[in-house]
Amino acid sequence: MSSAPVGDGIVEVDLSVIRQQVEDVLDTFVRRKVVEADGQPLAPMVALLKRVVVVGGKRLRPLLCCLGWSAAGGVGRPPSAVLEVAAALELFHAFALIHDDVMDGSSMRRGRPTVHRAAADYFTSSQGREQSDRLGEHAAVLIGDLAFVWSDELLHRCALTPGQLRAVMPLVDGMRSEIMLGQYLDLRSAGSPCGDVDGALRIARLKSGSYSVERPLQIGAALAGGSGLVLAACSSFARPLGEAFQLRDDVLGAFGDPAVTGKSAVEDLRAGKHTVLSALAWRRASADQRSALSVLLGNRTLTEDDAVQARALLAATGALAEVEEMIRSRHRQALAALHSSGFPGPVDQALRQIADAVTAGQP
Amino acid sequence: MSSAPVGDGIVEVDLSVIRQQVEDVLDTFVRRKVVEADGQPLAPMVALLKRVVVVGGKRLRPLLCCLGWSAAGGVGRPPSAVLEVAAALELFHAFALIHDDVMDGSSMRRGRPTVHRAAADYFTSSQGREQSDRLGEHAAVLIGDLAFVWSDELLHRCALTPGQLRAVMPLVDGMRSEIMLGQYLDLRSAGSPCGDVDGALRIARLKSGSYSVERPLQIGAALAGGSGLVLAACSSFARPLGEAFQLRDDVLGAFGDPAVTGKSAVEDLRAGKHTVLSALAWRRASADQRSALSVLLGNRTLTEDDAVQARALLAATGALAEVEEMIRSRHRQALAALHSSGFPGPVDQALRQIADAVTAGQP
Repeated sequence: MSSAPVGDGIVEVDLSVIRQQVEDVLDTFVRRKVVEADGQPLAPMVALLKRVVVVGGKRLRPLLCCLGWSAAGGVGRPPSAVLEVAAALELFHAFALIHDDVMDGSSMRRGRPTVHRAAADYFTSSQGREQSDRLGEHAAVLIGDLAFVWSDELLHRCALTPGQLRAVMPLVDGMRSEIMLGQYLDLRSAGSPCGDVDGALRIARLKSGSYSVERPLQIGAALAGGSGLVLAACSSFARPLGEAFQLRDDVLGAFGDPAVTGKSAVEDLRAGKHTVLSALAWRRASADQRSALSVLLGNRTLTEDDAVQARALLAATGALAEVEEMIRSRHRQALAALHSSGFPGPVDQALRQIADAVTAGQP
Repeated sequence: MSSAPVGDGIVEVDLSVIRQQVEDVLDTFVRRKVVEADGQPLAPMVALLKRVVVVGGKRLRPLLCCLGWSAAGGVGRPPSAVLEVAAALELFHAFALIHDDVMDGSSMRRGRPTVHRAAADYFTSSQGREQSDRLGEHAAVLIGDLAFVWSDELLHRCALTPGQLRAVMPLVDGMRSEIMLGQYLDLRSAGSPCGDVDGALRIARLKSGSYSVERPLQIGAALAGGSGLVLAACSSFARPLGEAFQLRDDVLGAFGDPAVTGKSAVEDLRAGKHTVLSALAWRRASADQRSALSVLLGNRTLTEDDAVQARALLAATGALAEVEEMIRSRHRQALAALHSSGFPGPVDQALRQIADAVTAGQP
């Protein structure tokens, strides 16, 4: 049981139990796909997708979906339909990550080669490295597409009531449009550093505020028939937390230990990702610091030594400290919103745990 | 009115009227998206997607969806929900084409630059050609993803009944998995020529048999509550026709006039696309012809003159004539299946028109 009635409809919520329930749904779904593909040409690609889905991730979005359901009055173990929608969010996330990694040219994710890298190795042949790399990227686009198809399949067959469909589908579709916009802004703005903090915050809001936190929570609440007030309470908590999440992700992208984050701490710098961190550094930099930053950030041949220098500048300008303060302040805002949300105590507690983990950047 | 009752529930079906009704749904949907994006950063990408969706295509899949609905007993003008599902199929097709063009490195589609080429031009900047090309491809992946998101949005909000959802969604999801598999086989098998006709036919079945013809027709029939028998009758007509469609597409990919087909007649040869045409040529070739084919097909630096030589070989081996005979024979099979389908006369007539157009390769 993920949650047991404790008098008066209030429930106890155990995140690890909910996580396991979501894992079980994902596992069953993906295993069936693997069995269906067995001996078929698509088997290696299904195996690559399985590795992404079954091996890892914090399951943040599914957890928030299930907590949203409890926040809006769902009592006890989330029913199958809620767990299946939660799992569908995770499959959609696999799609987004796989395409994101292709676009960023990232080599590592969750401590393992990204899908396009693994697919390039699979396609290694007489055709030479460049051709393998292209095939790997194209196969990864397709594998990402397949994750999207699977996400829909799970979503379509989870037997929602007409009322649930009406409440939930616009949120799902909205979330998907928002992440597309966030990804596009991310793609378009990478390159040379600039001081556009608002632009960077906008990306953070779309990529994480909405997509990773607010919408999953609201989708869960809508599944329980949550009112407009409940959905608004979800937003008040989720928006600052989502921004804090993205700010932490940006910090980890430059300063994180790859052994802990599972991804490179050089690639964001190399790509010249437009983050609040880099925008603040640019704003706060002296003339000398700026010219150093403009050589380092977005430099495709950035070495590990260069990265050390870039990190030193991000810290020396005071940008790192300012971002840390922004994270703390958003964390506080989220907790304050939670305090006045009126969510059942155990849900409040579980969301608090998530807020702490997300802002601390626990992998 | 697309179709008017003609005694006894039998209807008259005017393809151009149905096409216009689908255009109207697409147009309204996409125009709303353009208005929403106006002045926003995503506006140029929405404009690129609009160009793909609103400007063109035969609307084969939407037409088949509406005809499937009539075949299963739908009388009169297809209701909004049917037109919206039909339009959603077209948006999904835009997604598939955009990603397909990225993977094939195609430069032209429907007589205009492909999305990734247009996006590369949009991103032309100080960053150099190679970087613009990469950004163009990545933006096209995102624009394709957005088309998928839009397709779902239209599908989710068209107010299907629970019974329709149960009947239709598994067909939609199945269709999507099949095209992914077809695309993957296409990607994996391109390169050097070989004589695997069965493998090439399998790709044809997945890419066109199922995705372009059988599933759209069945989806329409399912919307009208068509029985298993009706769905089977759809398949008997659609499978041979879908194969004929792909075989015609392969012939046009090598022999078509770009001014008519709107796409290059060199790129398939250059990519070494594994088609029934190329597989038959390989099988039927003499030793000398084989060594010439192995130099030409899949040669990334193939010139227009080389292409003339390759076409001459495809014809001289007798492969072209054999593929034309395969198209004719599948066309006959489809018409025979239609004859025994029991579909209302006017639906039969309209499907016959489509079968003729598709096998003749009318753009």
